Amino acid sequence: METINPLKKSPIGIFDSGLGGLTVLKSLEKLLPNESFIYFGDTAHVPYGSKSAETVIRYSKSIMDFFMKHYTKAVVIACNTASAVAYDYLKKMYTIPLFDVVTPSVEYSIKISKSKNVGVIGTYSTIKSKAYTKMFKKLGRDYKVKEVPCPLFVPLIEEGWVDTSIAKNIVETYLNEFQHDNIQSLILGCTHYPIMANTIQSVLSNKIELIHSGKTVGNKLKDFLIKQNIENSINSEPSVKFYVTDFPQKFDELGSRFLGRHLKNVSHINSV
Amino acid sequence: METINPLKKSPIGIFDSGLGGLTVLKSLEKLLPNESFIYFGDTAHVPYGSKSAETVIRYSKSIMDFFMKHYTKAVVIACNTASAVAYDYLKKMYTIPLFDVVTPSVEYSIKISKSKNVGVIGTYSTIKSKAYTKMFKKLGRDYKVKEVPCPLFVPLIEEGWVDTSIAKNIVETYLNEFQHDNIQSLILGCTHYPIMANTIQSVLSNKIELIHSGKTVGNKLKDFLIKQNIENSINSEPSVKFYVTDFPQKFDELGSRFLGRHLKNVSHINSV
Repeated sequence: METINPLKKSPIGIFDSGLGGLTVLKSLEKLLPNESFIYFGDTAHVPYGSKSAETVIRYSKSIMDFFMKHYTKAVVIACNTASAVAYDYLKKMYTIPLFDVVTPSVEYSIKISKSKNVGVIGTYSTIKSKAYTKMFKKLGRDYKVKEVPCPLFVPLIEEGWVDTSIAKNIVETYLNEFQHDNIQSLILGCTHYPIMANTIQSVLSNKIELIHSGKTVGNKLKDFLIKQNIENSINSEPSVKFYVTDFPQKFDELGSRFLGRHLKNVSHINSV
Repeated sequence: METINPLKKSPIGIFDSGLGGLTVLKSLEKLLPNESFIYFGDTAHVPYGSKSAETVIRYSKSIMDFFMKHYTKAVVIACNTASAVAYDYLKKMYTIPLFDVVTPSVEYSIKISKSKNVGVIGTYSTIKSKAYTKMFKKLGRDYKVKEVPCPLFVPLIEEGWVDTSIAKNIVETYLNEFQHDNIQSLILGCTHYPIMANTIQSVLSNKIELIHSGKTVGNKLKDFLIKQNIENSINSEPSVKFYVTDFPQKFDELGSRFLGRHLKNVSHINSV
């Protein structure tokens, strides 16, 4: 009798400061339809983007401890801020395979941008951390990376104003910063932004490819699971569980908008 | 020898989820130039507006405990969300004289609005709580109160885009809701909003008076201190101390914008 690696059936953990990471979960579900997931949204502390590195690391550690107790076979940090400021620290501290959203997007950007001119947009915190610029350097690439903070995108998306002329004006104002840079790709460095991808693309040349971290980290995770032989290839019934530290305003509305379906199996967990 | 009530020299506590309450402190300093203040900004948990009532009450209790240890003679809840959801609870639980920002603004609104048609703007959480509508009823006034959430105002103010055409478009879009209501006054139900008062007034009839909670709670507090004979009437050197639970992005910039001067005496305190 062949023994099946028990890790195959273990869930994959995903965490974010709030609900934005559900766009990442959506991509992962599409790429890995047999896997079970545990989504942790630290909604009592959202947003991480305006908080210090020390505070974000403290919150992230607590969430990793939660995942350790739930025997996840891998964890995806779906939050750009936490990826930028906590990933290196968590990677040293925990044995569990860990995936950030910065590295895979930079790797993909390098793959498709031969001109060596690339752009990144995100929250203040993510951009200020220069995590993307540093990652290009770390991967040995002498790319010209322009990073622009777009802090109004998140509230616009949460307000549901994505397709309004106001949204377009705001997108134009921010992206105007790239007009002389001849960028070939633009990394959406915030999990909310894919919701606004059409409006963003509409003010950019079609030659500029938008990079969604959900897709890039999903592909990287898939390769890893197959290589390690721990992917769940059995045609099982995968489960998705959600844990949140608070139920914010418009929880259901936002959750549905980000995930594309109603959220079931949601548990409240006291602030970790 | 006359004994001076030691409470006279005690500081006044002010708290907010973040830095917005500095607009209230600014008003209080103007109205009570001899008083000392302790400002507590719970920046590690900002914003309260998107969090549940239970969570906001928990945070507010910790801050009240902090003020108890610092012997403040009164506390002003400068945060509209906390005023709306935690004030009644805190008032029962603590002996320290407590002032919210909802009651004084409603009282002033009643005083100046003979038409009985009034408006309120604020964050989702404040508006959803219906705290202002309930307060008009509690004070026995059968006013027609229209409350409109304007969640994009805070990020616009924090981005420094107050005087842009984008800000004007957003203000017009939100305030359009009031076009058929013939309101006589509009309560700025969020401590950030006074920063945007000019833009707000510019899209409204001059007959509509904007109500700033900093001024209304300041006048109420002043009356109370005089009545209780605990105002600091001595020409002393008042001190202002700031405690924050985190140093967010643009801390200095925002602090200066809200208070009108650079913040000195700022201490970090671990999340309470």
